[in-house]
Amino acid sequence: MRLERFILEMENAGFDGAIVSPGANFYYLTGFNLHETGERPTLLVISSDGAYHLLAPAMYRNQISNFPVTFWSDGENPYHKLSWIFGELKLSGGRLLVENTMRADWLINILKLGNGRFELHPLSQVIRELRMRKDEKEIKLMEHAAKVVDRVFDELLTWDLLGISERELALKIELRIRELSDGISFEPIVASGENAANPHHEPGERKLRKGDMVILDYGARWRGYCSDITRTIAIGKPNERLVEIYETVREAQEKAFRTVREGVMAREVDSAAREAISKAGYGEYFPHRTGHGLGLEVHEEPYIGPDGDVVLGEGMTFTIEPGIYVPGLGGVRIEDDVAVVDGRGRRLTRSDRELILL
Amino acid sequence: MRLERFILEMENAGFDGAIVSPGANFYYLTGFNLHETGERPTLLVISSDGAYHLLAPAMYRNQISNFPVTFWSDGENPYHKLSWIFGELKLSGGRLLVENTMRADWLINILKLGNGRFELHPLSQVIRELRMRKDEKEIKLMEHAAKVVDRVFDELLTWDLLGISERELALKIELRIRELSDGISFEPIVASGENAANPHHEPGERKLRKGDMVILDYGARWRGYCSDITRTIAIGKPNERLVEIYETVREAQEKAFRTVREGVMAREVDSAAREAISKAGYGEYFPHRTGHGLGLEVHEEPYIGPDGDVVLGEGMTFTIEPGIYVPGLGGVRIEDDVAVVDGRGRRLTRSDRELILL
Repeated sequence: MRLERFILEMENAGFDGAIVSPGANFYYLTGFNLHETGERPTLLVISSDGAYHLLAPAMYRNQISNFPVTFWSDGENPYHKLSWIFGELKLSGGRLLVENTMRADWLINILKLGNGRFELHPLSQVIRELRMRKDEKEIKLMEHAAKVVDRVFDELLTWDLLGISERELALKIELRIRELSDGISFEPIVASGENAANPHHEPGERKLRKGDMVILDYGARWRGYCSDITRTIAIGKPNERLVEIYETVREAQEKAFRTVREGVMAREVDSAAREAISKAGYGEYFPHRTGHGLGLEVHEEPYIGPDGDVVLGEGMTFTIEPGIYVPGLGGVRIEDDVAVVDGRGRRLTRSDRELILL
Repeated sequence: MRLERFILEMENAGFDGAIVSPGANFYYLTGFNLHETGERPTLLVISSDGAYHLLAPAMYRNQISNFPVTFWSDGENPYHKLSWIFGELKLSGGRLLVENTMRADWLINILKLGNGRFELHPLSQVIRELRMRKDEKEIKLMEHAAKVVDRVFDELLTWDLLGISERELALKIELRIRELSDGISFEPIVASGENAANPHHEPGERKLRKGDMVILDYGARWRGYCSDITRTIAIGKPNERLVEIYETVREAQEKAFRTVREGVMAREVDSAAREAISKAGYGEYFPHRTGHGLGLEVHEEPYIGPDGDVVLGEGMTFTIEPGIYVPGLGGVRIEDDVAVVDGRGRRLTRSDRELILL
């Protein structure tokens, strides 16, 4: 059970307890999806002795079972109950891990209860080791999320794309993802023509026209897990320089992928892509990391950048997405989701990476 | 200028400084919309002496102008720069207001810099007084957001609703709101037939059929400001008891609205609705507050409930949304957005409140 493994890790790292609020870590540890609790204090308290107890708003009574829990109702002071939980777990001070994204107003109240006896540390520093290594079941869910975006790519190639606006196309992609999965993992990016020179372009009113290269970047969510794919397609015959850029990016992405294996550092994957792009003379036009970890969050560890000091290991999942962006001309990015399985890289997204001319 | 008014309030309340992270308060004080900065520390530091300074990720350079700001790049330690800002503003300890929703990992680093000399308090306790009282410009934006949802209601009455699923209808409403505004303020609720007995029902596969009462609850966002409307419509002739319930809710909503004026307490508005519903014998079937404040957030102060101790005043904006939910039978809710203007209540949403039979 994940919670028990976490408690072991926490104890080994010399912590006395942890407090986890709703979010990816909370879901990972409990299986409960309480993201909607908003401003109502919802806190999982864990002692390194092995005991744990959840404080939750009474309105979520139906969603929690087989778990030690105390409910509080609107009008009650939840921190009185939290104080009781601290007492039950004999947690009165010491080194405490705190969910990184916990709201400050909850933390202020926790600090008050601790009366200066808690030394706070971010939860990520312990849980990252567990979260980064996906088990078989998690990889299966991620493969499903990846299949959804592959399928949407196959389908969109059959849509009538000439003359559609970036915004309309982004919406069509979003709606199809929503039909096929639990929802989008982020708002789709559609960047056409010169707009593709901005890696963070927001889809706008520009209509796709002949000669455009178009960056399509989108993702799905399945049972909590994310996919994230980018393909760049051409509407009719594009500018020759863009075709050369495309080939450079495709090769860089391939080289980075081939670098992936157990024991390699994240930054080695980044530099494989970066060197290929620099050699072709486009180094200054590749301004971002080569990739990011992917899982319950669409951006998580390990980050695949020049400073990536994580040693890649079994079950790690991340994107490989080099890109080249030339102001005034356009851009190309190609992104796959990759998992380390049996010591080697496995692509989860498998859409065609050759340049497609529509 | 809002920031200067805030500093005055902060000083009057005896605070030495404030730290605000992105969110509604940050947007309210600066006009900058940096909600996307994610895990990258983005902090507005304010001293009660009147000085203020923003720490922001370098990638947001283009979005910030005419403001004292220090940027940090990926790879740099942002807290070194924050420490410098503390020095510049001579903020080395004392009573510090902290944005309620700030991430715990940022706050942990702020506490380290303070080295035990900061006493933390939630920002809401000072800024709520400003945020609750909308000025003319804010009310205009809210009126626009309200007009959008009124228009969508007019339109949806002309759609072919017989046989459509809750989920399809919720999606159609969402898409129309997205066309007419900056987006939805929350995911639309469509609850039909017996599903309407659950105030928090998630739209599902149930298809609308003759005899159904259907709760429609949705909202739009315009330049940051939210609207939030609920209407309950009938598909063909409904059950007589539901018609009686509808009239009870309509009357309760009307009575609560008439209670609104400057100087009245929020709980008086709640009890006007609650008494009307109790008198009709449905008291136990009205399990939620009568309303909530509305503005940059879809739920904010003042809350209109039995414990609502805010004295209503000029410029306050909130919903009035009593409901009756009878398990196995169905439910009715009617919600308008209301502003206190010239000392009296003004409805911002104006869709028909009589029972509409389609």
